[in-house]
Amino acid sequence: MTDVWVNGASMMPTGRHYNVNIDEMAARVLDEALRDAGNPQLDALFVASATSEQAEKQQLLGAYIASRLGLDKIATYRVENADGSGGAAIMAAAMAVRSGLYNCVAVVGADKPNDVLSNQQQDIYSTATDTVYERYFGVTPAAQAAIMAKLYLNKYEYKYEDLALWPVLMHKNGANNPYAYMRKQAKIEDVLESELVSDPLRLYDVGPMADGAAALVLCRNRGFAKIVGMWTSTSSRPFNMREDYDVLYSAREAAERAYAMAGITPRDVAVAEVHDSYSIFGVLAAEALGLAPRGQLLASLKAGADIKVNLSGGLKSRGNIMGATGVYQAVEVLWQLLGKAPFKRADGNIGVLHSMGGVDRTSTIVVFAI
Amino acid sequence: MTDVWVNGASMMPTGRHYNVNIDEMAARVLDEALRDAGNPQLDALFVASATSEQAEKQQLLGAYIASRLGLDKIATYRVENADGSGGAAIMAAAMAVRSGLYNCVAVVGADKPNDVLSNQQQDIYSTATDTVYERYFGVTPAAQAAIMAKLYLNKYEYKYEDLALWPVLMHKNGANNPYAYMRKQAKIEDVLESELVSDPLRLYDVGPMADGAAALVLCRNRGFAKIVGMWTSTSSRPFNMREDYDVLYSAREAAERAYAMAGITPRDVAVAEVHDSYSIFGVLAAEALGLAPRGQLLASLKAGADIKVNLSGGLKSRGNIMGATGVYQAVEVLWQLLGKAPFKRADGNIGVLHSMGGVDRTSTIVVFAI
Repeated sequence: MTDVWVNGASMMPTGRHYNVNIDEMAARVLDEALRDAGNPQLDALFVASATSEQAEKQQLLGAYIASRLGLDKIATYRVENADGSGGAAIMAAAMAVRSGLYNCVAVVGADKPNDVLSNQQQDIYSTATDTVYERYFGVTPAAQAAIMAKLYLNKYEYKYEDLALWPVLMHKNGANNPYAYMRKQAKIEDVLESELVSDPLRLYDVGPMADGAAALVLCRNRGFAKIVGMWTSTSSRPFNMREDYDVLYSAREAAERAYAMAGITPRDVAVAEVHDSYSIFGVLAAEALGLAPRGQLLASLKAGADIKVNLSGGLKSRGNIMGATGVYQAVEVLWQLLGKAPFKRADGNIGVLHSMGGVDRTSTIVVFAI
Repeated sequence: MTDVWVNGASMMPTGRHYNVNIDEMAARVLDEALRDAGNPQLDALFVASATSEQAEKQQLLGAYIASRLGLDKIATYRVENADGSGGAAIMAAAMAVRSGLYNCVAVVGADKPNDVLSNQQQDIYSTATDTVYERYFGVTPAAQAAIMAKLYLNKYEYKYEDLALWPVLMHKNGANNPYAYMRKQAKIEDVLESELVSDPLRLYDVGPMADGAAALVLCRNRGFAKIVGMWTSTSSRPFNMREDYDVLYSAREAAERAYAMAGITPRDVAVAEVHDSYSIFGVLAAEALGLAPRGQLLASLKAGADIKVNLSGGLKSRGNIMGATGVYQAVEVLWQLLGKAPFKRADGNIGVLHSMGGVDRTSTIVVFAI
């Protein structure tokens, strides 16, 4: 495929940013990413946000971000794929560059779930499920994740203690990431003793919702990294009609297509950031990306294997920045490939992100190379 | 530019569709558009909706539309630019085809503003304004439209009775359009005697919000029409810092760029559909598209000129289908070019749509040719 180059990247620490509006957070990281890119002429802005409408009561977010920076006459678009908005926006932006219409575009992910109370956050989060066939009947993302966790653990003969290795690893990874929301180590006892959310999943299996913004500048001209493969796939299967509950169809399909486009195999992947809004999704996503055989990721963790997944701390520790998460993942993967602080340089030149919307409803895979 | 072909188009009558869900409306028109296109393999679906989140409490709408039709593994994206979502989604979809990643994509616009009460509709509509600098202070779209109308009428020495010619024309055009919401003629007295909304604008100056869905299928392979020019432009000027109040900057810029891309001048435009959510915007949009000199459109109407703008009836008569409006406009322009019922064949082969988000914050212009 025609490469799309990354010329700039920026992110702000995740947290509870009560003192700054969503458009100002977005403008700040966009400004930084543009400076990182050498201040190119920007043709378009793609905004990824899952909370701007329901939490901020703001449509047309791109127009107001552009206003803050005086970016007149550029095109602006918001791309919403629920918590998978970030990956979808990167995909749409990269296609726009490939189309030849634009030389340089930016992707900004921005969300402030903490602008609303946690019951309202859950309300918003659940609007990523099928309103008619799931949400009205109380089938929450947590319940769906719990069902998938139970069936996975049972099928591959694991105990819950094995799944608990995921949040322990995430907290280990995130503890040293100054951009992370939950910067602390966690022992397996912390996980096992935490509140039960939806059997078997406990509080430590859930990525906490954090505020944040991250930005990328994508251009036709040479930058410090390039997008060599990308794909979005949506699973049409309703949850109750799935053939298997231990696989993320959308992630597997998108990964196969993106790898084929990039001409790589999973063995070429030096680092990956996956959407572990619940720890079981982290496990299933890593397997869908081919980073472990199906059913074997927890066995690898138990054997102490050094998996290069979610070195940021993932959604568990870095935080779930809703629709902005995919843009955070992009910056993390890029900085890992480059060895830019706070990340160590990856042992390879290929990094991958997995951005998921809903419970395996849509996934975008983006393959970066330096 | 590389042409993007239109292979299928469909729309349903606008109205109050209490008996069908938004995803089912969307699936219905998508199915019809796919049949119109000869049922090609669909690679991606771009959804335009401005009410799905706030009125329907549904994110990820594309995934659930795909589910209803069993369209497995396709990519889905929702594009939100408030009431300009339709044009923005067509633009994003056409760029995706041009990028070479997809052969055939669909754009579906779907909105159901009547699923909420009219005060809630106005709440949602006002989220297209700048939350921090406008909405919090009660600066509504109606107020902004009224200011622009007053200044326009004053500057060009018109009376309100002159502006009232716009809704009269729209009702005349829409009366014979079976897809329109308000299918009745209106006399100038009806307009002048209608309720004052925001001085000088009256009830007949406001496009009523209607439910509806429309769809397009865009492909690389030859279809019945093609997109020969398109552009999106966003004005960064806050309302209180505009240089002029009698021009739609975003529409003018987008039209100039789209015409240049298509190699046409305004004289080549046989038909146009513009975003007249308030009648003053219809006047300003027609002028921004170069269909009349600045300040002269109402003079043309007074002189009885046959302007080929909003033969559908526009937002006033066909209805304001919020984010879906731009997709309706596309189908209307195409059917006018083709002479497909209920529309008469246009006297020319070039048609244009103008899709606007917010009050002149962002506009998309698409130029179709048969």
